[in-house]
Amino acid sequence: MTAAAFGGLDRLIADFGDIPVVTERNVVRRRSRDFFWYSPILNVQLDGKTADLMVLPRNEDEVVRIASVCARHRVPLTVRGGGTGNYGQAVPLEGGVLLDISGLDGIEWIKPGSIRVGAGAKMNAIDAAARPEGWELRLHPSTKRMATIGGFVAGGSGGIGSISYGGLREPGNILAARVVTLEEEPRVIELRGDAAQKVNRAYGTTGIITALEMPLAQAWNWIDVVVAFDDFSEAAAFGHEAALADGIVKKVLSPVTWPLPSYFGALKPYCPEGKSVLMAMIAEPSLESFRSLLGGRGAITLEMPTDESPSRVPLYEYCWNHTTLQVLKSDRSVTYLQCLYPHDRVLEKVAELRELFPDEVMQHLEFIRFGGRLTCSGLPVIRYSDADRLNEIIRLHEERGVFIANPHVFTIEDGSRYKRADADQLGFKHEVDPHGLLNPGKMRSFVSARG
Amino acid sequence: MTAAAFGGLDRLIADFGDIPVVTERNVVRRRSRDFFWYSPILNVQLDGKTADLMVLPRNEDEVVRIASVCARHRVPLTVRGGGTGNYGQAVPLEGGVLLDISGLDGIEWIKPGSIRVGAGAKMNAIDAAARPEGWELRLHPSTKRMATIGGFVAGGSGGIGSISYGGLREPGNILAARVVTLEEEPRVIELRGDAAQKVNRAYGTTGIITALEMPLAQAWNWIDVVVAFDDFSEAAAFGHEAALADGIVKKVLSPVTWPLPSYFGALKPYCPEGKSVLMAMIAEPSLESFRSLLGGRGAITLEMPTDESPSRVPLYEYCWNHTTLQVLKSDRSVTYLQCLYPHDRVLEKVAELRELFPDEVMQHLEFIRFGGRLTCSGLPVIRYSDADRLNEIIRLHEERGVFIANPHVFTIEDGSRYKRADADQLGFKHEVDPHGLLNPGKMRSFVSARG
Repeated sequence: MTAAAFGGLDRLIADFGDIPVVTERNVVRRRSRDFFWYSPILNVQLDGKTADLMVLPRNEDEVVRIASVCARHRVPLTVRGGGTGNYGQAVPLEGGVLLDISGLDGIEWIKPGSIRVGAGAKMNAIDAAARPEGWELRLHPSTKRMATIGGFVAGGSGGIGSISYGGLREPGNILAARVVTLEEEPRVIELRGDAAQKVNRAYGTTGIITALEMPLAQAWNWIDVVVAFDDFSEAAAFGHEAALADGIVKKVLSPVTWPLPSYFGALKPYCPEGKSVLMAMIAEPSLESFRSLLGGRGAITLEMPTDESPSRVPLYEYCWNHTTLQVLKSDRSVTYLQCLYPHDRVLEKVAELRELFPDEVMQHLEFIRFGGRLTCSGLPVIRYSDADRLNEIIRLHEERGVFIANPHVFTIEDGSRYKRADADQLGFKHEVDPHGLLNPGKMRSFVSARG
Repeated sequence: MTAAAFGGLDRLIADFGDIPVVTERNVVRRRSRDFFWYSPILNVQLDGKTADLMVLPRNEDEVVRIASVCARHRVPLTVRGGGTGNYGQAVPLEGGVLLDISGLDGIEWIKPGSIRVGAGAKMNAIDAAARPEGWELRLHPSTKRMATIGGFVAGGSGGIGSISYGGLREPGNILAARVVTLEEEPRVIELRGDAAQKVNRAYGTTGIITALEMPLAQAWNWIDVVVAFDDFSEAAAFGHEAALADGIVKKVLSPVTWPLPSYFGALKPYCPEGKSVLMAMIAEPSLESFRSLLGGRGAITLEMPTDESPSRVPLYEYCWNHTTLQVLKSDRSVTYLQCLYPHDRVLEKVAELRELFPDEVMQHLEFIRFGGRLTCSGLPVIRYSDADRLNEIIRLHEERGVFIANPHVFTIEDGSRYKRADADQLGFKHEVDPHGLLNPGKMRSFVSARG
């Protein structure tokens, strides 16, 4: 849909009143992108997709007005947070309005164990506000220093912290979400408890999230640790053992095969040539136990308190999707996958896949809890040849019982492990977006009555 | 060994100098007991076992003096804490000296995430000291209000909190232990990290623990919750689901079959007639998520902040070994077992055992993490007929893959799941107790050069 198709921008802008609007093509085009270029496939498919204009509401009332205007004009609306997603979640496929949520960045309150914030609050800012009171977010992506909490909930599944708490979909990891519906007379709905899952990883198709209530964890003094091993299998085996050690408080356990650490910028001095590494974040009081468990098996090359000051690169920016990013910075010939290993055969399956692709697929694991069980997510870096070969690699994983959440597709369904939308989310979308205007094209299962 | 056998008490008492000594037979006899009477078998076997005198050291120097005196006189020494063990760990089988450790009750220091205390510190007092700084012990037995930390480490395996942290044997759950050897010239040894396991569940046979460094957890506002279900299988199934929900912070999840709740004293009003219950301790910020997960499946009959004031009975005093105690208070015809279910078939095995013993074995489970995996410990209350039948019940469990840590035996080996002593502990005992005087008879595998 072009601007012309919905009757020109002027009427729309006039109806937005004094809400700040950006119409400069270059700016709107740039803000219509995220990190989908990780995928050579999405990089072609989403090229040139852009909104027609961007609005920057400063509070929920303005979000309500924007929603009403878009409903009346039947204009698509796509919400954007920090733009750090990897699957084009914030890329408007049909033009229209890009709603930048970052103005809703207030901290409503902090209580022992929970916090309520605007959806546009940066995760780094949330932690900065919570830490003086002894708290921090349970989970954050490796892009914590740029990402908004709304973007994380709308697109994310987990990340740093999932080794202890599982993903965002686990009961208790999102306490409540407040959403605005896309209707002529928008409603504001509070989704509490399990109902808040209606907006998790729905890419903003099931309402405009304006506020979130999130659980907080004890803020520990985290220590960034790197352990070097002769062989990747040793890094994976010790990582698994440490992951199973419930008495050791940790936030990340990430085994990475050589040569990936050779791309690790500021972390490179702690990654000896030819060695695979385990990256870990360990709570300071558990560090001695971690060392004791390691025994003489690997060499600790780094032990340093996590430093998030602007000039430093904390260890977590070498983990999760950042591992791939560190490689992409100097080698654009690679891409990646997102695998979920079966919890009862983690190390066997890792070994099996490694043998199958000794060079083409470079192993990178993240130990996580999933459904209460310890397993690992695999985010291997892959030497990319073409889409057919990538799909074959996916098939060869799936045939062996390793699930793939495909990061080379832009719909919610295709990117999920089960290739389908959550029934609750689909039903809820009909309630809150009757005209099918919220981020259209992302929830493939949804067929609107839009005329 | 009688007092006469080692040359009379007078020499011994003289050598103890000004260390307080108790010789009154009745007092010494009473303090030589613990809760072994839970077991009708131990109740006969350990009847009348008593020390000859009790010493009450006030500091580590006095412990060193006592150890030296006992070594020189070749007098057995058994350490006692709160006396809340269930297997006669503190019962002197060969008389001699009973060392009451409760005078070593100092708090050396509290740091973020860890605490160092005297072995005789009551666990309740430790929590009381840690809570103002936002901390509490990770694990405690249901006897927290009487037990000492030294007794818990020397005899315990886990308890309240094991749903999150596993047992004391998990790496990180004991940070360090300081022990005095039983030699003419006693040494004081600091065991750090994995080495601290040398004293865990060794009944004081591997050195006299004088101080412990323990990890601390975030002190939550805990809510005691009771949920009533029509059938025990529903209580167990929901308990399992809640146990697997890593986003819900909890300290206890304990399904108990009817009619056990009918014995529950002050908790009885919240246990409806004929219903099985799930007892839970949930962190206040997770309570809404817990309710949301429950949905309409059971009826919440109690939600109350944990109240440990002297006139109240906190919910945890109906859990773990206290479940059995609540029944024993009015019915001495029952006893119990300690089962470990296989983590990959928890609910199937619970159902299988329940079918096998519909009335004789009354199910009581405690969900725990064990080796990083969620499973449950079973502490069923059993209608006791005789030792043969009890052993048959044990055999029928073991044949079905349910391990038993037999609470009807007094040696470390027979009471363990593997019927053997830890090799490290046995080796260490030779180092620290060359004359075999520490709690003799409890570590069956140990053969000393004692003449």
